[in-house]
Amino acid sequence: MPKPGRYEIMRALTLADGLLRFDNSYPQPLPAAGEALIRITVAGICSTDLEIVKGYAGGFQGVLGHEFVGVVVETGSEEDEGWIDRRVVGTINLGCRKCAVCLSEGPEHCPERTVLGIHNKDGVFADFVTLPVVNLLTVPEELCDEEAVFTEPLAAALRIREQVPVRPSTRIAVVGPGRLGLLVGQVLALGGASVTMLGRREESLALPGSLGLAAGLVDEQPDNAYDLVVEATGNDAGFAHSLRIVRPRGTLVLKSTFHGNANLNLTKLVVAEINVMGSRCGPFTPALRLLAASSSLSEMRAGIGVQVRPLIESEYPLHEGLAAFEHGARSGVRKILLRP
Amino acid sequence: MPKPGRYEIMRALTLADGLLRFDNSYPQPLPAAGEALIRITVAGICSTDLEIVKGYAGGFQGVLGHEFVGVVVETGSEEDEGWIDRRVVGTINLGCRKCAVCLSEGPEHCPERTVLGIHNKDGVFADFVTLPVVNLLTVPEELCDEEAVFTEPLAAALRIREQVPVRPSTRIAVVGPGRLGLLVGQVLALGGASVTMLGRREESLALPGSLGLAAGLVDEQPDNAYDLVVEATGNDAGFAHSLRIVRPRGTLVLKSTFHGNANLNLTKLVVAEINVMGSRCGPFTPALRLLAASSSLSEMRAGIGVQVRPLIESEYPLHEGLAAFEHGARSGVRKILLRP
Repeated sequence: MPKPGRYEIMRALTLADGLLRFDNSYPQPLPAAGEALIRITVAGICSTDLEIVKGYAGGFQGVLGHEFVGVVVETGSEEDEGWIDRRVVGTINLGCRKCAVCLSEGPEHCPERTVLGIHNKDGVFADFVTLPVVNLLTVPEELCDEEAVFTEPLAAALRIREQVPVRPSTRIAVVGPGRLGLLVGQVLALGGASVTMLGRREESLALPGSLGLAAGLVDEQPDNAYDLVVEATGNDAGFAHSLRIVRPRGTLVLKSTFHGNANLNLTKLVVAEINVMGSRCGPFTPALRLLAASSSLSEMRAGIGVQVRPLIESEYPLHEGLAAFEHGARSGVRKILLRP
Repeated sequence: MPKPGRYEIMRALTLADGLLRFDNSYPQPLPAAGEALIRITVAGICSTDLEIVKGYAGGFQGVLGHEFVGVVVETGSEEDEGWIDRRVVGTINLGCRKCAVCLSEGPEHCPERTVLGIHNKDGVFADFVTLPVVNLLTVPEELCDEEAVFTEPLAAALRIREQVPVRPSTRIAVVGPGRLGLLVGQVLALGGASVTMLGRREESLALPGSLGLAAGLVDEQPDNAYDLVVEATGNDAGFAHSLRIVRPRGTLVLKSTFHGNANLNLTKLVVAEINVMGSRCGPFTPALRLLAASSSLSEMRAGIGVQVRPLIESEYPLHEGLAAFEHGARSGVRKILLRP
């Protein structure tokens, strides 16, 4: 007999053969042993979702979405029932947790992994999703859903601090003052470092300024001016500028995925001995800790917390998901939330 | 009055307006204060020289060449006269030694630097060259000239060990079993690590084998098989293979300069969080120490020394420099030496 709140079918935003559509009767997933069934409260659209719709991720089929907050309504195993009714966020990589890569580098790099809403695993733009309980984290009480939904992208921003030493005197630039770039900038400013957000147009510099971050036009930056540059545009021009403004023996972090072939001049990379780091998924526990600590601040400035509410552009009900995607794809748009 | 061994004019292999020529009456340089005048004993042609002739390095004009052994015949300052008659090698970057970059990163990255035979400074394919005495190192007695001439490229290979931790269990591949790649392979095998030299053709694998290094066809390597991959081809295909065979969170060292724009797919770089390091000039003192220690070995195997004599293809007199360059540009050719 179905438990309360459980449906045989559900609403979902799906991708099939490159076509995004709202489906009123998508099969509701069942939690396997070790998994939880989660009712989605709110979800966020990120640039990766937009890229997948454009054809990246090798023709993903199924429910899109990987940024979410939800409530556990059922578990596949009796011993996990303590999770029921908990408000959760979840990490997005499902590794085998047995292979050498899982054991040494984590499930993020498992060759057999599936990835929530990205690779062979239905995502969160739906009424329900399933995830292994090992992927779940309880959301602290003091965080509202609209803050907690930023846990995944904030963790991705924090990942940089796990890969690269960020000293208080490190001169940092973030190229691309968009949704992810603004989280990266705020995260790198924690600890006292000077961070400059760089955009191509004056209009893109208003929001960084309102968050207390320095901002400037990328064209106007001198060569070799920064110790650490984070590329958050994912395009050739952003890479070229980032390489140009990083100092000899400096570090360039690629935080946005490049799709297809990039046409790049790597001469400086070798001659100036630049260190280029790819950077992807990050740690959820510190992200939640940081969000919770920041939520109690009445006013925030760069370096003393992470502001996520000003990053919200708009909210759509799930059944208006196609309009939400159109909105999110416009230039300069901040985070679009979806609510089932 | 000119000192013995000093000429007003000299022979030199010069590049002017993209044309390489042998010049019988090039002006002999004069040592300024702090500089030494060095009579070249033997010089080596490296791939960078070949690239410069093809037009790289922004239209270099002057005497080519930066790998050399020579003897100091005169100094510009009296207090440096102790250098006279010493057999020397020399580092190739001439920084201002005053700016913040020189003081923090070394003269290799000084924005005002000149580079011997590469950028605004006459090189060593000539009877004489001048260099600051701070750039000079005395060659140990036990080394013959044909070994010591490898100091500069061996230092460049050692540079990798300064940038990246090389553990005994690190699985290493070097893509490109050429002149520089074979030095890199030998250097990375010191300390007990397994190194595989990878080439595109079976013929290219004989020499690595004779040096005791494992070798294989790059096409046949599985994805994600190596912890550390050194790209020593400088072409797009070499980069693509290197990125393909490095494991998630592994390191890819770019040891060959890429010229012009490369057409690259960076998706894996970000998704697998690869660390890409540019690598250029290295430390001369350890290179000389290693060459001297290795020269006493009667037989060498991978991991117990560095063999350079098997890397010599042929030797030409300076006045046959054009023929030497033609020879050096052929596929699969080892080191060509020039002797004034």
